[in-house]
Amino acid sequence: MRIFISGFGTVGQGTMETILLKDMDIQRITGDKAVIVGVTDSKSYAIKQDGVCSFSVLGSKNMSGKVGPDMKDGKSTVDIMKMVEFDTLIEASPTNVETGGEGLVNIRWALENGKNVITVNKGPLALEFAELMAIAKEKGCLLKFEGSVGGAMPIINLCNDALAGQKIKSIQGIFNGTCNFILSRMDGGLPFDHALKEAQQLGYAETDPTNDIEGYDSASKVVILANSVFGVNAKFKDVSITGITAVTSEAITLARESGMVIRLIGEVSKDKLEVSPRLIPKGHPLSISGSLNTALINTDLAGPITVSGRGAGRKETASAILSDLIAIMLAKKN
Amino acid sequence: MRIFISGFGTVGQGTMETILLKDMDIQRITGDKAVIVGVTDSKSYAIKQDGVCSFSVLGSKNMSGKVGPDMKDGKSTVDIMKMVEFDTLIEASPTNVETGGEGLVNIRWALENGKNVITVNKGPLALEFAELMAIAKEKGCLLKFEGSVGGAMPIINLCNDALAGQKIKSIQGIFNGTCNFILSRMDGGLPFDHALKEAQQLGYAETDPTNDIEGYDSASKVVILANSVFGVNAKFKDVSITGITAVTSEAITLARESGMVIRLIGEVSKDKLEVSPRLIPKGHPLSISGSLNTALINTDLAGPITVSGRGAGRKETASAILSDLIAIMLAKKN
Repeated sequence: MRIFISGFGTVGQGTMETILLKDMDIQRITGDKAVIVGVTDSKSYAIKQDGVCSFSVLGSKNMSGKVGPDMKDGKSTVDIMKMVEFDTLIEASPTNVETGGEGLVNIRWALENGKNVITVNKGPLALEFAELMAIAKEKGCLLKFEGSVGGAMPIINLCNDALAGQKIKSIQGIFNGTCNFILSRMDGGLPFDHALKEAQQLGYAETDPTNDIEGYDSASKVVILANSVFGVNAKFKDVSITGITAVTSEAITLARESGMVIRLIGEVSKDKLEVSPRLIPKGHPLSISGSLNTALINTDLAGPITVSGRGAGRKETASAILSDLIAIMLAKKN
Repeated sequence: MRIFISGFGTVGQGTMETILLKDMDIQRITGDKAVIVGVTDSKSYAIKQDGVCSFSVLGSKNMSGKVGPDMKDGKSTVDIMKMVEFDTLIEASPTNVETGGEGLVNIRWALENGKNVITVNKGPLALEFAELMAIAKEKGCLLKFEGSVGGAMPIINLCNDALAGQKIKSIQGIFNGTCNFILSRMDGGLPFDHALKEAQQLGYAETDPTNDIEGYDSASKVVILANSVFGVNAKFKDVSITGITAVTSEAITLARESGMVIRLIGEVSKDKLEVSPRLIPKGHPLSISGSLNTALINTDLAGPITVSGRGAGRKETASAILSDLIAIMLAKKN
């Protein structure tokens, strides 16, 4: 299986590192070898038909974001993809939830040219999910995106594989670790501003935290789940969104006095797309503290199934990509 | 796919009902039809090569445990299995952790004769896991057992599929819903004896609760995980077991005052097999209350992944069998 990686930030680098480190495991499980034949970042690229990477490349300055030595010089990632033969694109360029950005262009080109795609890029999926799945189906290739919702939390493949045959009635979840960290710290008595500052100092929250604390990031995950698990052709604008900026210390204290906590919950079903702060009883699976992502999947047979995991991180996101890659290699072997 | 069901108690009946109700979904997902060609209970049997069951059978007195009208009259389930052609045995006869019981005989015969096996019967797996897997491998058939650990909680398939390629370092979990219910009620101030009586009245605990409260049930799940996820050839006697009978109200109160709860935790790794009551911080994924089963899977890449679900129940256990059946039908199609 020949692989092209577009985007070489934290996720792209972590993915390359993981594929190289897990070389033996991948071969043992799939009977096939994963060879990275091309990599691009915003400015440079590297392609080599028999594999651009070896362990000796890792740890060199190439791992710090500059793929080099070849400069793109105005060429797009699509131009670079045309220069090498490959089977699967791993799309890890920066997300853009308004236009889909270069990621959307790359994914569409790859699918139209019969390549499988693995992406953790939420923008293209939140904007054009149905269209991209239709192209994949027409071309007989696979589009996988486990890492786009909840990072290492295995929710997409869990719904589609381990819960196969069951009707999934709704999913309620904590889809943003930054908000959950802030709300957990507020449980401990910290005011919102202090908790946010601590989240920024620890690297959980961006300098501009709008996307997290206003609920937009959670909403884009709600849209992806609506499309992929419920088959609803939903867009970002269909989600009713309330963030956590209006959650006061007084509200948290009142909740605590009734044995409850406040959590930012995304809810998805056939007819509900919502992100809002909710009261959750202590001891409930959605009451957990800290920066984990958690999803409660309501099914017709199994009842409620809860899954949680780290929502972000280099190795964690790469782990989701690895499971998608192994699934594609197994599917394409047959 | 032709199916034989041995055992027609809660699980066997729930499985037949589920396979009939999910007929269309199974065909849509697998492209194949699941036909039940034989059923036995302890006294009677029914076989019919083109399918013993229809919706009209369900709800009749046949669902109350008497498969009839044919009586076994000294014939064993193996004798009955020889009377019909089938591909997959669903083993749901009563568990026996000392000898493996008739379930072990049935599973071994089926595998040796090239049939796939789905079982929720913990005895045979805890006693003869490595031997049974070796027969399955030799005969080219599949042995699946998702429902044997944690009922509806999808842990076995999660470890093998969604976490494919990752190194699982350890699993810690709440593997007995009865104990967790009792400990949760003790959190609320009830003494052990009262909490146990309530669990019995609600049908969570048996009249003789030894198997649950002494930790034996959790230990058999620890053995199955050790064998199936860690590849350790472990037996029941290898598990260090402490139940919850020595957990006092005073210990629970002391824990609460430090922001902790007490939970009966099973732990599995390459070199540790243990069941014991442990202090867990509130808000931790293993601190959840009630009768759910929960497992915290520690991986090299994804970090900690937690999954929880109902540990028992007619539909819930049938849901695990359904996911195994669909996986077998997909695997055998190719």
